[in-house]
This record gives sequence, C-alpha cells and structure tokens, in this order.
Amino acid sequence: MGVVEFFDYAGVALFAATGALAASRKQLDIIGFIFLAAVTGMGGGTVRDLVLDVPVFWVDRPVYVLVCMGVAVLLYFTAHLAESRYRWLLWLDAAALAAYGVFGAYKGLLVSGTPIVAVVMGMLTGTLGGILRDVLANEPSVLLRREIYVTAALTGAGVFVAVDAVGAGMALAACLGFGAAFALRGLALVFDWRLPTYRARKGRHPDRI
Amino acid sequence: MGVVEFFDYAGVALFAATGALAASRKQLDIIGFIFLAAVTGMGGGTVRDLVLDVPVFWVDRPVYVLVCMGVAVLLYFTAHLAESRYRWLLWLDAAALAAYGVFGAYKGLLVSGTPIVAVVMGMLTGTLGGILRDVLANEPSVLLRREIYVTAALTGAGVFVAVDAVGAGMALAACLGFGAAFALRGLALVFDWRLPTYRARKGRHPDRI
Amino acid sequence: MGVVEFFDYAGVALFAATGALAASRKQLDIIGFIFLAAVTGMGGGTVRDLVLDVPVFWVDRPVYVLVCMGVAVLLYFTAHLAESRYRWLLWLDAAALAAYGVFGAYKGLLVSGTPIVAVVMGMLTGTLGGILRDVLANEPSVLLRREIYVTAALTGAGVFVAVDAVGAGMALAACLGFGAAFALRGLALVFDWRLPTYRARKGRHPDRI
Repeated sequence: MGVVEFFDYAGVALFAATGALAASRKQLDIIGFIFLAAVTGMGGGTVRDLVLDVPVFWVDRPVYVLVCMGVAVLLYFTAHLAESRYRWLLWLDAAALAAYGVFGAYKGLLVSGTPIVAVVMGMLTGTLGGILRDVLANEPSVLLRREIYVTAALTGAGVFVAVDAVGAGMALAACLGFGAAFALRGLALVFDWRLPTYRARKGRHPDRI
Repeated sequence: MGVVEFFDYAGVALFAATGALAASRKQLDIIGFIFLAAVTGMGGGTVRDLVLDVPVFWVDRPVYVLVCMGVAVLLYFTAHLAESRYRWLLWLDAAALAAYGVFGAYKGLLVSGTPIVAVVMGMLTGTLGGILRDVLANEPSVLLRREIYVTAALTGAGVFVAVDAVGAGMALAACLGFGAAFALRGLALVFDWRLPTYRARKGRHPDRI
Repeated sequence: MGVVEFFDYAGVALFAATGALAASRKQLDIIGFIFLAAVTGMGGGTVRDLVLDVPVFWVDRPVYVLVCMGVAVLLYFTAHLAESRYRWLLWLDAAALAAYGVFGAYKGLLVSGTPIVAVVMGMLTGTLGGILRDVLANEPSVLLRREIYVTAALTGAGVFVAVDAVGAGMALAACLGFGAAFALRGLALVFDWRLPTYRARKGRHPDRI
C-alpha cells in the first residue's frame, strides 16, 4: 500500500469515527452508529466516484464497509471514555478532511487530468462527509459555523496538485498536502482563526421582508 | 412479473404514498404532493442504481414516474379520510422499507455478486427514501428517533441474502426477507421496541464546549 | 453558442448568484461564498448528468467552475449594495429555475428520447439547486413555502417539450419554455399566487400522536 492509498483508508476510518461520535451524541443504538459511520466515512468518496464516472470504491472493495463497521462498534463501547466527544469529533474531522481532500484531488487528477477539477474534487469530497453527517444528525453544520473548514480542504488539495505539478512525486505531494490542510484546520481550531467574513448585515427571516 | 419485481413496484408505490402523506401534513399543493411522492418513491432506487453503475430504473421505464404521480393524486383527494395520517405514514413506510430493502439487496447481489455489498445496498436503499422525505419535509428524521428502523432494513436484506445463499430460490428468499423486515419493524411500532441505546450522556450544543 | 447552450450558462451563473446571496445572508467568508455558489450553481446539473449517465458537465468543461467562482467573488464585494438580498435572491432564483428547467428538459430529451423523462428532468434539475442551497444554508425551504415553484419548473419543461414536439424548433421551444416558467414564477412572486393547497389539517408533531 502506497502513501496515497494510506490516506484513502485513513480518511474513511477517521470520518467513520466522527460519524460514530455524532451517533453517540444523539444516543443512537449500535445500528445507528454503524449507519452514521458508514454514511460519513464513505459518502464523500461515493459522490467523488460517481462524478468522476469510475466504479464506486466500496462496491469494488467491500473491506471499506468492514472498516466503517469496526470503527463504529469500537466507538460504541469506548466513546464514553472521551471527556469531550465533540472536541474529539472536531480533531478527527480535521485529520479526515485533510486525508480525504488529498486523496480526492489525487483521484480527480488521475481520472480527469485537469488540475482545476482535481482541486474541486479534493475540496468537495473532503468536506462532503462532514456535511452529510451534520445534516443527518441534525447538528449545526460546520459549514455555517464560519470556521476555516472548506478553506483547509481547498488548501490541502491545492498544495497536493501544485507540488505534484512541479514533479516532486506523488508521495511527497500527498504528505505536504495533508500537512498543510491539517495544520491550517488545527491552528484554526486552537486559535479560533477565521477569514474575514461578509458583514453587511444578517439575513432576515423571509416572512419579515 | 416475478415475485422480486413485484416488491420493486410495491416499494416505489408505498414510499410514494408516504411522501404524499408528508406533503398533506405540510399542506402543500398538488404539485408538492407529486414532487415529494416522486422523490421519496424513486430517490432510494436512484441512488442504488447510480452506485451500482446500472441505468437508473425510471429513465429506462418511465411508468414508475406515472405510478408516483397516480399515488400522489389519489392521496391528495383521500388523505383527509385517514384518522391519523402519521400512523398511516409509519405503517406504509414499514412495508416500503421491507419491500425496497429486499429489492435493493436483490439488485446489489445481481450486479456486484458480493453478499456484503448486497446487504449494504438493501439497508441503504430501504432507508434512503424515508430519510430524503424527512429532510425535505423538515420532519424529525426517523433515523434519530432511535427506533428499530435501519435495523429492520438490515434484517430483511440479510435474511434475503442468507436464504438465497443456501439455494432456497429467489422468490422464497424475497418473501422471507420482506416478512422478517416488516414483522420486526411492525412489532417495534406496536410494542415500542428499541435496541439498547448508547447512554453515557447527550451531546451538548457546540457553543457550550 | 446556440440559444439552448446559453440557457445552460445562464442557469449556472444565476443559481451561483443565489448561492452567494444565501452565503451573504449567513455572513460566511469568501470560501463559503464560493462553496455555496458552486453547489447551488452546479448541483442540479450534476444530478441530472449522473441520472442520465452522461459525463458530468463541469468535469468535461471546468470553465463552469470558474463561472461560479467569478460570480461568488463579484457578489462578495457587491451584495451589500442590494437593498433586500432575499428579494434579489428570489428573482434570480426564478430566472435560474426557468433556464435550468428548460436546459434539463433539453438534455433529458436528447439522451433518453422520452418526453416524460425530459419533463421530470427539467422539473428536478430546475428545483434541485435551490433545494440544496436551502438545506445547506439552513433557510426555510422554498419547497415548503407552498408557492408556485416546482409548478413553474414543470410548466417550463412541459412547454419546451410540447413546442419541440410539434416541430417548431429547439430555439423557439427553449425561449417559450423559459418565458412561461419565468412569467409564472414572477407573477406568483408579485401577486402571491398559490395553487389550492391541501387543507384538512396540519400534521401534529410525532410525539403527540
């Protein structure tokens, strides 16, 4: 297994863990854990493969399903040990975002050959798992919390594509891309970094217009 | 039309009926009825066919669209006769879940040949229609109500795959799978059965961490 | 670029603008603007192409991604000039709905050759961008506001297919379809038109049944 493939499994397992943590926050049963873990872990990659028109990865290699199930069962019995599950969720999510973003860009580049499609793929599939999880678990979407989130996935995918384009090799590009995305998201979590946000005024409720 | 194909039409029509009932609860107009019926009735199967990389069923055979329209129009004029539309919705949903779960597993087995992919397909497509309906209609998702729901779809798909694997024939496998899923979901509705849920403590709101 | 292709670009750009306006209402940063603009602008067409089993349009021609980015950046700096961003959002959305509905029906007809699939495609892809936007931005879905919305997309797609079927030419069919959908949606916005809605009684919360 090469470096790039490693990020694929890591992304799936880490996202599955965040799905299981979300299930624990909602006090679901063990099947609910597995369901949310599977949707979060494999959702982004499924959309990536559909859009790129390649066979969906887990239909080809069902071991990914077992990875998600294993992570879900493990967390069903251990999630209470974590002091703050939401904080764990955020950090695992950061690592998953970085790993998935890099692998999404890699696969996008491989299939389409177009750097811009590769970057969009990395950004989209890096963030989609978390968005699906938040919508299904009815948590406030990380997308709307105005943090550096999509930006980190974009940075990771961009660094990967740029380092690869100058001929430095896939493995180095993947590691640098992962490092950039995880560092940026991690620093944003620690120091509460934000990009300047649009501040004219908040939207009113449609009924009051 | 064989036994297995029958479950396909039944799943689409029953899910379409639950979509129309959700529309009636939200007091939508007739086009809203048709839209929610079509998305609920055909959404799960559409995702199933996309993931399995086979032609989407209703593009090949548009009669499914007409089935959803017919169900929606029928319920637009008769839904008020039901004493508790939500209770009807739950029971129709149980039958749809069982039928769709079996047919999803059947198609997954047919295309991929892998039992684990077949079971995941059954679980996913059996539950997806209802999840889409709840998200679009802004109802509390049945996924989060901690009932035996995903578990019933999983059981039906598992029974179907297991009975088929021992060579008992598709028709028997389909009937037993449907029966197991519907009985489990029905008993859970009547006796309020639940799996033991994860109970350490509920998640706090992200802002209070 | 023919008349029909023009509606494609117009639909993408207009939907992207509504996504960016939703981002401004939520006070997101510039990457959030781009993300919501891209999902809203290209989401409906992506699902359309997946269901029709043709290559996803923006993977083939990444210029669409740049269109969405350009619109998002432009609105990030100019959205505050609009007096009521939600009203602008509604009108741009009306035009996008009409353009996308016509182009969806066109592509559905081209690929499947079946009028009913073409109409469903137009209805679905005309409304899907806005629904995705509302779900992601956590706005009250236009689908549930009981306005003439899905109906307008359906009308546009239906007029396009009907005019084309009598042999009047694609360009005329596209213009008449766009005009019908935009006029109907616009008149509904101005005069608060609604279809008769289902009125027996509202759904109760599931816990009170």
